[in-house]
Formats: sequence, C-alpha cells, structure tokens
Amino acid sequence: MMQLYIANKNYSTWSMRPWLVLHAFNLPFQEILIPFSEEADGGAFKQQMLALHANGKVPLLQHDAVMIWDSLAICEYLAEQFQELPLWPKDPTQRAWARSICAEMHSSFMQLRSLCSMNLQPDYGRHGQRLWSEHAVLRAEVARIEQIWSNRAAVDGFLCGEFSIADAFFTPVVTRLQTFQLPVSDNTQRYMQKILQHPSVVAWITAAQLEQPVRRMEQYPR
Amino acid sequence: MMQLYIANKNYSTWSMRPWLVLHAFNLPFQEILIPFSEEADGGAFKQQMLALHANGKVPLLQHDAVMIWDSLAICEYLAEQFQELPLWPKDPTQRAWARSICAEMHSSFMQLRSLCSMNLQPDYGRHGQRLWSEHAVLRAEVARIEQIWSNRAAVDGFLCGEFSIADAFFTPVVTRLQTFQLPVSDNTQRYMQKILQHPSVVAWITAAQLEQPVRRMEQYPR
Repeated sequence: MMQLYIANKNYSTWSMRPWLVLHAFNLPFQEILIPFSEEADGGAFKQQMLALHANGKVPLLQHDAVMIWDSLAICEYLAEQFQELPLWPKDPTQRAWARSICAEMHSSFMQLRSLCSMNLQPDYGRHGQRLWSEHAVLRAEVARIEQIWSNRAAVDGFLCGEFSIADAFFTPVVTRLQTFQLPVSDNTQRYMQKILQHPSVVAWITAAQLEQPVRRMEQYPR
Repeated sequence: MMQLYIANKNYSTWSMRPWLVLHAFNLPFQEILIPFSEEADGGAFKQQMLALHANGKVPLLQHDAVMIWDSLAICEYLAEQFQELPLWPKDPTQRAWARSICAEMHSSFMQLRSLCSMNLQPDYGRHGQRLWSEHAVLRAEVARIEQIWSNRAAVDGFLCGEFSIADAFFTPVVTRLQTFQLPVSDNTQRYMQKILQHPSVVAWITAAQLEQPVRRMEQYPR
C-alpha cells in the first residue's frame, strides 16, 4: 500500500495534485496528513517531514522502501506504476501537451501563487478585485492560463478529454480563481465548473472546509 | 529532425538542460539560437518566441507538428521517444529518485537561481564570497544540493552512474558553484569536476564563452 504524506487540505496545493490523481483513479493509498504548524520556522510540521525525508516537504509518496517527492515526480511515478490507466492521456501528442502544461504550471505563475494563495474556506472576492486592478503580471498570468485551458480537447470536457494529471495540476488554479473571483471568460468558467464538480475535487474541498484555520497560513482577513 | 530553440548559451540554464540531453545521447537535432534582447520587455527575442509558440519561452522543442516546451516536459518527451536509451536510469528505484531530484530542481532553489545567475564568462568569486556571508537561505540551498549529490551511485560517477537527465538538470548548478566559487565539500567538488569534464558540457561552455555579452543579463560587474 502506498502512503501519501500531505499537509492541510485547505492550503496545500502541491499536496492536492497527486492526491487527486490517486483518488480519481481509485489507486490504493493511505493518506497521512501532517498539519502545518503556527511557528514561522515550520515547527513540528517541519520536524516531522524532515524525520521522514531530507527534502522536508509535502507531498511525499512512500511505496515500500521507495520515497518519491515533489508533485510532478510522484505523478510520473504513478503513471509508470499504473501504465494500464490513462493517468497521462494515451495519445502521444496529447501527452506531450499535457506534460508541457504541467511543467509550465510547476515552474511558473509566481504572482498568482504568491498573491492568491489557496484557501478553500473564505470568499476573497474583495481582495481579488483589488489585486486584479493593482497587478498587471497577475492579469497576464491568468490570461496565459485561460489560453492554455481554451486549447482543451472539447469545451465540456477535461483538458485532454478525460480527467488526467493535467487537470489535477490545474485544479488549485481553478479554486484560486473561484475564491478570489477573478474575472474570466465564459469558456474558462465552464472548465472551472467541470473541475469543481469532479467527485475527487468535491471530496478534497469538503474535507478542507472542515479543517481548523492555521493563523500563519491565512493570507488575508476573512 | 527535431529542432531545439534555445537562447544564449552563456545565460540560459533552462536551454542548457535539454540541449545537454540531446547532445550527450547523440540524438538527431538542429539547434536554433534566438539571442536575448537588451530591451527590458524582451524585445525581438520575445517577439520571435511568441511567434513560434504562445508560451513565448525557451527551451522549445519542435518535432514535426508537435511543440513541447519547458525543460522537464522536453526531457520526458525525449525519454519516451528514445526508450531504448538510458535518458532516465533503467532501474525503477533510481529513476524515481532521478525524477524526484529533477522536479525539486525545477521548482526550488530560488535564492541560488536569483542571486547567482548563470554566467560562464567571468570569475564572480568576490561576489560569491559576499553573497555567501549575507544570505543564510543561499547557504541552506547549497547544503541541500550537496546532500542530494552525496547520495549519488558512486563518488566518481554521475548521479545515477552513467550521465542522465538528472545530471543535465544539475549542470547549471555546477557552473554557478564554480563561477561564484561557493565553498563546498571535496565530495561535491569531485562531482563538479566530473560534470565539467563531460564532452557535451565542455562543448556548451566553449560556445558560451565566445558569445557577446548582453548587458541586461550581466548581473554583477566583471
């Protein structure tokens, strides 16, 4: 049985991604949630993660004696372990596109990630309105994301048709656009609704909304 | 024939990574170098890259009608296209480790990347000394990198024994440690020398040193 170490579902976007893949494809795994600490140095959370692995971060996948860390490496590992399932799309050209957009997500969109941290409990619409007017780079990043999503296989489908790693990678972007109510196109909103209705996404968000807030992780007043 | 779009060899670390993989494994490819512009908005470089692809960045791999961008997605694509070659190590556990450290490189070490930009022409030892004393996070990042490298298969080998994508991903870290003369262990220096003697790395650096400097990309006075 694989074990996936994650942090709070309300805040940890990188935990969310491989968890969604494991959950959506019904892969056998045990979830171990190590909650973030209030201490600025990471406190007990950091100590526990460092005791597990020198990288000291979530997500961390343990499979027998093998430790795999970082969301993208975990997803590639899962895709290899369960080759019969379409974790990546089966079509090579679609797969190349899916990997490209996931890698772009993994290394980019820094303003969106820093200004609009994930928080699945509050409505941050008024903060979103202010951030949108003040930050041209944020607007440019969202425009690029809308462009990527507009290239999906079908307007009413997931990015590559069926749900895949690519959708898991962009789900925390969907929730940010939702929480901060950033102004996006109808086409984008259709993709957002598709994601927000996926049973695995619903399961994660429902659990996240029951968690106690961690003061240090609350980016804006509620 | 595949075409790899890259930027200046003296500065573009993300171009360097897939180029090294293509070159080291003797894969058939044409290199197309689009030089960085002096303009702060990216100028002609940005215009040319945007005309090729909406992502607008290097590296970009074109393979017939397929465009693959971002260094990590390109390397995964190549590993799939040339499955008979050990672009990733053939052992599954080593491969999981290689993917983990590449993904960590892809998303981390922000202080090293921002304070010590790649520049293969000058000796930045005096800047390195100052940065090292002033930035605790830089020291912590280099410590983590040394820890990763110390877990390599054999002290006189590459990270997974033979040269692989993992080494290509860490080569621009090796050159930064060298250019800024950051204080590292003997074990680390042995890995650095192994990388710096690899024929593909030598070929890239030799070409980089013949390039004209781009003022905007020169981080510190020479």
